[in-house]
Amino acid sequence: MKQFIALVAILLGGCAAQGGLNIKEMGSFHVGGREHTVSGQPIKTVMFTVGGAPAKLDPNGVYQVEQMYVQYFVPANGRGTLPLLMWHGGGLTGVTYETTPDGRPGWLQYFIGQGWTVYNSDAVERGRSGWAMTPEVFKGDPVFLTKENPFERFRIGAGAGSYNKDPAKMKLMPGSQFPHEGYDNFTKQGVPRWTTTDNAIIAAYTALVDKVCPCIVLAHSQGGPFAFKVAQARPDKVKALALVEPAGFGDMATAGVLKNTPILTVFGDYIEQDSRWPTIRGNVLRFLGEVGKAGGKYEVVDLPKIGVTGNSHMMMMDRNSDEVAGVIQKWLALQGFVR
Amino acid sequence: MKQFIALVAILLGGCAAQGGLNIKEMGSFHVGGREHTVSGQPIKTVMFTVGGAPAKLDPNGVYQVEQMYVQYFVPANGRGTLPLLMWHGGGLTGVTYETTPDGRPGWLQYFIGQGWTVYNSDAVERGRSGWAMTPEVFKGDPVFLTKENPFERFRIGAGAGSYNKDPAKMKLMPGSQFPHEGYDNFTKQGVPRWTTTDNAIIAAYTALVDKVCPCIVLAHSQGGPFAFKVAQARPDKVKALALVEPAGFGDMATAGVLKNTPILTVFGDYIEQDSRWPTIRGNVLRFLGEVGKAGGKYEVVDLPKIGVTGNSHMMMMDRNSDEVAGVIQKWLALQGFVR
Repeated sequence: MKQFIALVAILLGGCAAQGGLNIKEMGSFHVGGREHTVSGQPIKTVMFTVGGAPAKLDPNGVYQVEQMYVQYFVPANGRGTLPLLMWHGGGLTGVTYETTPDGRPGWLQYFIGQGWTVYNSDAVERGRSGWAMTPEVFKGDPVFLTKENPFERFRIGAGAGSYNKDPAKMKLMPGSQFPHEGYDNFTKQGVPRWTTTDNAIIAAYTALVDKVCPCIVLAHSQGGPFAFKVAQARPDKVKALALVEPAGFGDMATAGVLKNTPILTVFGDYIEQDSRWPTIRGNVLRFLGEVGKAGGKYEVVDLPKIGVTGNSHMMMMDRNSDEVAGVIQKWLALQGFVR
Repeated sequence: MKQFIALVAILLGGCAAQGGLNIKEMGSFHVGGREHTVSGQPIKTVMFTVGGAPAKLDPNGVYQVEQMYVQYFVPANGRGTLPLLMWHGGGLTGVTYETTPDGRPGWLQYFIGQGWTVYNSDAVERGRSGWAMTPEVFKGDPVFLTKENPFERFRIGAGAGSYNKDPAKMKLMPGSQFPHEGYDNFTKQGVPRWTTTDNAIIAAYTALVDKVCPCIVLAHSQGGPFAFKVAQARPDKVKALALVEPAGFGDMATAGVLKNTPILTVFGDYIEQDSRWPTIRGNVLRFLGEVGKAGGKYEVVDLPKIGVTGNSHMMMMDRNSDEVAGVIQKWLALQGFVR
């Protein structure tokens, strides 16, 4: 009988242990947004599809704008005590956390596999969230990045001129963990972004928090300051922040409101020699200091100091992405969020 | 021992039978696209994040454009003999096939649940595929739809003036199956689209077919003519077409190349009284007739004729969405594509 029970246990365990994911529920929704009215414009005739039939298009009317797309996965064997919201960085989408540019499972799969219910979203105006008329709704010009821009700015390549279309000729940071042979795939993940839409983005993230939290927010880069600000607006609902190289901070004057929200920040390699990251990191630490003064708990992990080297700004894509995810997972467990 | 084997069988069967999805592998990638060079433009300074540090942005250089996003799911217990590629319609993304606007599982979940490996994509310039500079790369203006436009055009509402923000005041087609209480959610799925990017879209779909096929393509609306054309370009790789209200057709002169590709087209309700759909459907049938003349096999299902009534153009979202999916699933099984 004991052997029988042991076998049954192995078989049941095998459901999730086949290297795959046992998903109890998956789906998506849009959240937030508002209506925007256009008037006084002439009616157009549009042929939507070659071989179709012409349709009249009256541009006057009410438009849906500034909503946000969210895809979610609920694992069958949940181990996280709260849902995990994953917020990407600027010029990107939730694809950041999916398959890495060299084809390995990304942090989305990692955290689902660890038993977290994950909500992975595309910020307002990016990806499946859609975007609104510019300059009528979104002010200013959208920003497009050249293929070499993130290579230099995200601490993958060793400074100006380090990019080359041929991976064999790229000048990488010494010891870089970025899978540079997949850099071309990474550039395909990029989407245009505005620099004037912060308020709309924050409003939609807040609507998401109001819908699915209490929760933990895992955010990267530009998602970091959004996470700080939304947590400050909803300190009762955002129970922890795990921030990967946050590119900014929250409202300094009310930092203390986060005194009951444990905060982890993770920084990669090559920060000191970068022209921008020492300033950015310093600003974040100044904000965290204010949280600390109010009695808040935060931890700053500089990966090289714990022996994890070679990480770029896109550490969820680096060759040791699972090792970095493990640092976050361990911290979440230490905070008591893992069953 | 017999009882033991029976119990083990039940336990193993239970892995997939918990109402969830047992996923062997999931992930995403971008496919296709090309490089586009910009020169002679002045350097800009951009503050990417408030609280960050200013970055120089040289707009001159090489850009990645016209790639396509694809998300895939491989079920643990595969029953489809080929992967199923799901292509959405105009002004939308792969979200079309995800959770319905009233919160039920969509066709993505349905077909994964039936054991199909599914590749769900966002066409070039939509959703997570990103979009390129306009008018430099994408010619003409992007098209935005008002909230009431699809309500009238997609045979949800009963003609002009049928839309109302209050679902209780919407004038629906008699017997409509569209979950109108979720119409607002549906409008949030919309994304801007160009009418000048067909060639780029077809190129990326063709690149996807070259990467993951032989396969079956399930396409909706504007995705229909794309599916016809890509199948004509790769008749050896696209083994069947399941087209839901295709909004156009393929290259008439070479229709016969599809003689070995079984084709299903499904049309919903209210076609005859619509101002555009009789023409569109007639064009598609004319094309299918050419395929038939070459010995090709096709089936046209008008849902009302088989007793399935009330379906809008967005039948994958209608209340009887699973019933309509079942029509496609049954046809695929009849063609021998289900184990």
